[in-house]
Amino acid sequence: MNVLLNLLVLVGIAALAQAKACEDDVLCTYREDLCRDNVYYQKLCPKICGKCGKLYKMTYFDLRGRAEQIRWILEQGEANWEDIRIKLEDWPKIKPTTILGQLPFLEVENVTLGQSAAVAMYLARELNLVGSNELEAAEVHMVWQTVQEAFNDQVNIRFAPDNPTRIQRQNDYDNGRFPILTKFLENRLKDGQEWLVGNKLSAADIVTASLLDTQTGKAAEAVKNSPTLSALTKKVKELPRIKNWIAHRPYNDY
Amino acid sequence: MNVLLNLLVLVGIAALAQAKACEDDVLCTYREDLCRDNVYYQKLCPKICGKCGKLYKMTYFDLRGRAEQIRWILEQGEANWEDIRIKLEDWPKIKPTTILGQLPFLEVENVTLGQSAAVAMYLARELNLVGSNELEAAEVHMVWQTVQEAFNDQVNIRFAPDNPTRIQRQNDYDNGRFPILTKFLENRLKDGQEWLVGNKLSAADIVTASLLDTQTGKAAEAVKNSPTLSALTKKVKELPRIKNWIAHRPYNDY
Repeated sequence: MNVLLNLLVLVGIAALAQAKACEDDVLCTYREDLCRDNVYYQKLCPKICGKCGKLYKMTYFDLRGRAEQIRWILEQGEANWEDIRIKLEDWPKIKPTTILGQLPFLEVENVTLGQSAAVAMYLARELNLVGSNELEAAEVHMVWQTVQEAFNDQVNIRFAPDNPTRIQRQNDYDNGRFPILTKFLENRLKDGQEWLVGNKLSAADIVTASLLDTQTGKAAEAVKNSPTLSALTKKVKELPRIKNWIAHRPYNDY
Repeated sequence: MNVLLNLLVLVGIAALAQAKACEDDVLCTYREDLCRDNVYYQKLCPKICGKCGKLYKMTYFDLRGRAEQIRWILEQGEANWEDIRIKLEDWPKIKPTTILGQLPFLEVENVTLGQSAAVAMYLARELNLVGSNELEAAEVHMVWQTVQEAFNDQVNIRFAPDNPTRIQRQNDYDNGRFPILTKFLENRLKDGQEWLVGNKLSAADIVTASLLDTQTGKAAEAVKNSPTLSALTKKVKELPRIKNWIAHRPYNDY
């Protein structure tokens, strides 16, 4: 009984110390190297290192794919998160145990959340990346969904069954979905508008920069030839936390 | 100048009268028939008839399609909304003028919002159909997105280029997407759980009932053989406002 009581007291003290550390950043100075590599420093300076708040566990393949923009949101939002990566060869075994037979999914506070759009918009809200009001949040969602459609086309091109089909799909993308997307995005950045929604960075900019950054061929040329879209992509990738993530993330082809 | 002043005073009085009517429901008793058919009664009793608040203009084809679940949300949420329907033959002319070259879109407070998922989740928030907290709202979004994937399969089956392809896609749906969807939904309704998210009606139930209601063939059998899914579909369709909408909506094949 005494052992249990002592244990409870210890847990209580640890929780109070954690809460104190989260509020008391004067003890800590931002040191990127320590935040990245030093577990003791991370524990001592949790807010500085983005280790306060809820723990988000994000599971995906060891790829950028559908998860990379979500990882950028988690990084930019200074979330306390775990990057769980499943090997492709283990997937058939794991698939039937997952909420929707799909990746990514997010675990938070005993809830498992599937569907990348739902995960992204939930995290964007939690981490203040959805603009300034409900209508702006809806516009962020619209941009997210529109970029996801372009992403889905890219996946369909990659996994097209044979070469005539792949060339056809690539043409449809280059001459259909992609120019519509760029026109839509450029319209939102007209008249010196700095960000895609409202007047501050949101998940709309993050997902867009992440997609535009991975374009190849004709689509890459289109981004290069659009000063507004090039500038947006560069600006997002230069955000200190995202820049740091890109520099240190695991290497993947796509 | 006097004319302008008089006009401004009149507009002011009308606005005040509208605001008063919105708050003062003692004048009005709920009369479904009058709310539906009598323009004078609608104006006199706007809150009772769901005519208060923002005006939402929803534009889609003269079809159920991707808009019907959104119309159910608007009805269930007692929104003040306009059901704008575009003829198929007019679409090529209108398409280049729309925000994303797609339907549906929503106009509200000078903002145009494309992407049906963004429109639906925005309206669900505005009309209190997203559960009780942010995690439940995210679960509503997950269900919405999952049902949309099944809906997209149905569209792909309908517009498949030829019969072997159509049969293949139908088989993939009947033996792949659809059983995964039903298992996912049934799991959420286990242990006497009455609604798909939390303990109250949400947009998750509305989109699901709307989809399950339109199944044919093997999928229809699957719904019929699932007591939980049949009960959910029936319960949503029996909600007085949705029942009334279904009874009076324009007739469309799909």
